[in-house]
Amino acid sequence: MALTMYRLSVPTFVHGFGVLGKLLDKAEAHANETGLSLDDLVNARLTADMLPLSGQVQRASDTSKGTIARLTDLQVPSFPDEEKTFSDLRERIAKTVAFLETVRLADLDGSETREVTLNFTKLKMTLSGEDYLLKFVLPNFYFHLTTAYDILRHKGVPVGKADFISLS
Amino acid sequence: MALTMYRLSVPTFVHGFGVLGKLLDKAEAHANETGLSLDDLVNARLTADMLPLSGQVQRASDTSKGTIARLTDLQVPSFPDEEKTFSDLRERIAKTVAFLETVRLADLDGSETREVTLNFTKLKMTLSGEDYLLKFVLPNFYFHLTTAYDILRHKGVPVGKADFISLS
Repeated sequence: MALTMYRLSVPTFVHGFGVLGKLLDKAEAHANETGLSLDDLVNARLTADMLPLSGQVQRASDTSKGTIARLTDLQVPSFPDEEKTFSDLRERIAKTVAFLETVRLADLDGSETREVTLNFTKLKMTLSGEDYLLKFVLPNFYFHLTTAYDILRHKGVPVGKADFISLS
Repeated sequence: MALTMYRLSVPTFVHGFGVLGKLLDKAEAHANETGLSLDDLVNARLTADMLPLSGQVQRASDTSKGTIARLTDLQVPSFPDEEKTFSDLRERIAKTVAFLETVRLADLDGSETREVTLNFTKLKMTLSGEDYLLKFVLPNFYFHLTTAYDILRHKGVPVGKADFISLS
């Protein structure tokens, strides 16, 4: 597959959500074995003013959907941040992946040069689609995946680097 | 700049090390203000069997150098993992960036299809240069950057997402 805006976004996200799903599986197995509360794990965070595990999954979902919203003309679904259980988190991931799988290579044609305007509270700027994908989306997506992993490690879930870097 | 193997690797790494350097600046300023020990911060980790801050910087450095070693015919410097202070960490970053800045666009020409063999203790496989870059290098590089950030947040350093996603 060539290095295209599509290749760098959609398959990257789908692969990443696969990794996230497997991390949740290991967390659930660990909780079942040790009696650790799954609800506590959903709300676990590294420090008081960082998002908990649920927030990391929600922001990874939104980062991927936002990419498609900004780089294509497709209609993108909105998912409220109401996940409270592991089952809810899995459903959020499944809904996100189901949407991503509707995106076609051609939908992102020419998006390298598309003008993207970011309008977050703390970040307002206009940049090219390529800069948006490389400098904003990918760091952001991997940030939330890694922080989900880091939260699980911090809570004692026996996941390792090989669970994060999944090459199968 | 087009979506090339070079664009996705060298400028991504150099930008990432710039972010890492600024995170270290904020950590040092915070330590100076609060009396938090910088040496403790260098050795801080999220859980006993994860790498400390120093290890995250070292692995980010090695991930970037290993990319050039595997995707080009260039001679890549070896840096021993001996960093013990913030000043050492900054020097490791500076040496890594100085090396990366010697890499030219043409050095990575055709590396999409180059055969890459990974020979880590827990991961032995052969894959294309493109798969190596997208499925191994980028997740790995951002993993170590994010975990460095997460360690600092966990230790109370007042960094925020805007320090991580730096678009300037």
